Amino acid sequence: MRNIRLVVSYVGTKYNGFQTQPLKHTDTIQDRLEYAIAKLTGDKVKVISSGRTDAGVHARGQVLNFETASPIPIERWCLALNGWLPDDIVVMEAREVPIDFHSRHAAKRKTYRYTINNNRFPDVFHRALQYHHPTYLDVDAMEKALECIVGTHDFTTFCSRRTVVESHIRTIYEAKIIREAQEKKQDFSMRGGVFHIIITGNGFLYNMVRIIVGTLIQIGEGKKSCESMKLMLEGKSRKLAGPTAVAKGLTLWDVYYE
Amino acid sequence: MRNIRLVVSYVGTKYNGFQTQPLKHTDTIQDRLEYAIAKLTGDKVKVISSGRTDAGVHARGQVLNFETASPIPIERWCLALNGWLPDDIVVMEAREVPIDFHSRHAAKRKTYRYTINNNRFPDVFHRALQYHHPTYLDVDAMEKALECIVGTHDFTTFCSRRTVVESHIRTIYEAKIIREAQEKKQDFSMRGGVFHIIITGNGFLYNMVRIIVGTLIQIGEGKKSCESMKLMLEGKSRKLAGPTAVAKGLTLWDVYYE
Repeated sequence: MRNIRLVVSYVGTKYNGFQTQPLKHTDTIQDRLEYAIAKLTGDKVKVISSGRTDAGVHARGQVLNFETASPIPIERWCLALNGWLPDDIVVMEAREVPIDFHSRHAAKRKTYRYTINNNRFPDVFHRALQYHHPTYLDVDAMEKALECIVGTHDFTTFCSRRTVVESHIRTIYEAKIIREAQEKKQDFSMRGGVFHIIITGNGFLYNMVRIIVGTLIQIGEGKKSCESMKLMLEGKSRKLAGPTAVAKGLTLWDVYYE
Repeated sequence: MRNIRLVVSYVGTKYNGFQTQPLKHTDTIQDRLEYAIAKLTGDKVKVISSGRTDAGVHARGQVLNFETASPIPIERWCLALNGWLPDDIVVMEAREVPIDFHSRHAAKRKTYRYTINNNRFPDVFHRALQYHHPTYLDVDAMEKALECIVGTHDFTTFCSRRTVVESHIRTIYEAKIIREAQEKKQDFSMRGGVFHIIITGNGFLYNMVRIIVGTLIQIGEGKKSCESMKLMLEGKSRKLAGPTAVAKGLTLWDVYYE
């Protein structure tokens, strides 16, 4: 048997998340990938991903692996699989890895990116990929509040109550805001511009990035103070945080391995 | 009567171009805009644009105007019209202008942008907006060839035979290639990167930008020499140039007025 590792990009808009939902008649990224692999190799395989993404969430560099007996040369896999995939899922890289490589267990870090468009009107070219917030946001306050999540903390406050994992302790290595350059000439519709909240950690709890972002938005709106972020984190209760931000702004950006 | 000037962005993918086609049952950007205006004001108006865009071509800053007796305050027009428009058409700016302002006659310059993705695999997030060319392109040669169109020339070579205008003389003020910054870490799928061909002129003939780009692609592929561009231009014959590049890479970027 061979162990094949793929890097996959997808636009999550049309899918009910990454993971196959055995009892529901839904369309997931995993279903589409396993269909393409079956068409190509004739094998019914189960792919292992670095982790699920929710319905409507996108990925730039999702990593997954699967075992196959297929003799297809490794350099042919990307193009061949892409031929069986819809336009909104693209295999960007295929590698053969040791048989014991496991995309989830071996993942050391992940980076998520959440994009907010703070201009008056939506960007028609990125509408499916940005949360549009047309009224004023104090991005400096959001940036400052974001700092306090860096380090090792109990993230119960920023975690869905529906989570099933035991430990809520995670380490955030980096959390920052990157503002997109704005064109000088574009007087129309400009307000706060477009910015990305980028968070890298050793792991993320269920809805964690979206709840952090939902809370930051309340801070940006002035509904919560910048200083309250640290108190919320220390309070260890989901009810202290803001709402879960909409899925479409979120992208699993990168997964890192040793 | 009032004269209202709009700046509109649209993704052209699903439309049969900007202009209404009276004898065909097609869906155009103009139809959609006139429908929204009719819903808002109760008036059947005809909008005047800075110029048509072809089927599948996008616009970031298309400019148009129309006359109306509607008393709706100018600051309400954008939001109100956007409420009647589909997600892929957005009014970005509305202004009241002198009654004799005419979007096409008054346009002094236009900028078009054509985007080529020269990486191995398509960018799933920009698939509808880029021409994907997965094999090697000599972008330096394309850049050099592009220089010779700057100035005032007869552009018969780079103009569809179906054009109906008398004069093929146009002035190009600027023509350049901008390469998108590539991320260092992204080893997968990187080849030539993504780049934009940006051309500003006092006017453009039918298919002119797409024929210039189709010719540049042949130069990038090594099928034509960099020096041949100037000879083609001087030859004043459509058959000397390359093919018309696909519509989806092209965006009407900006229209300039006095």
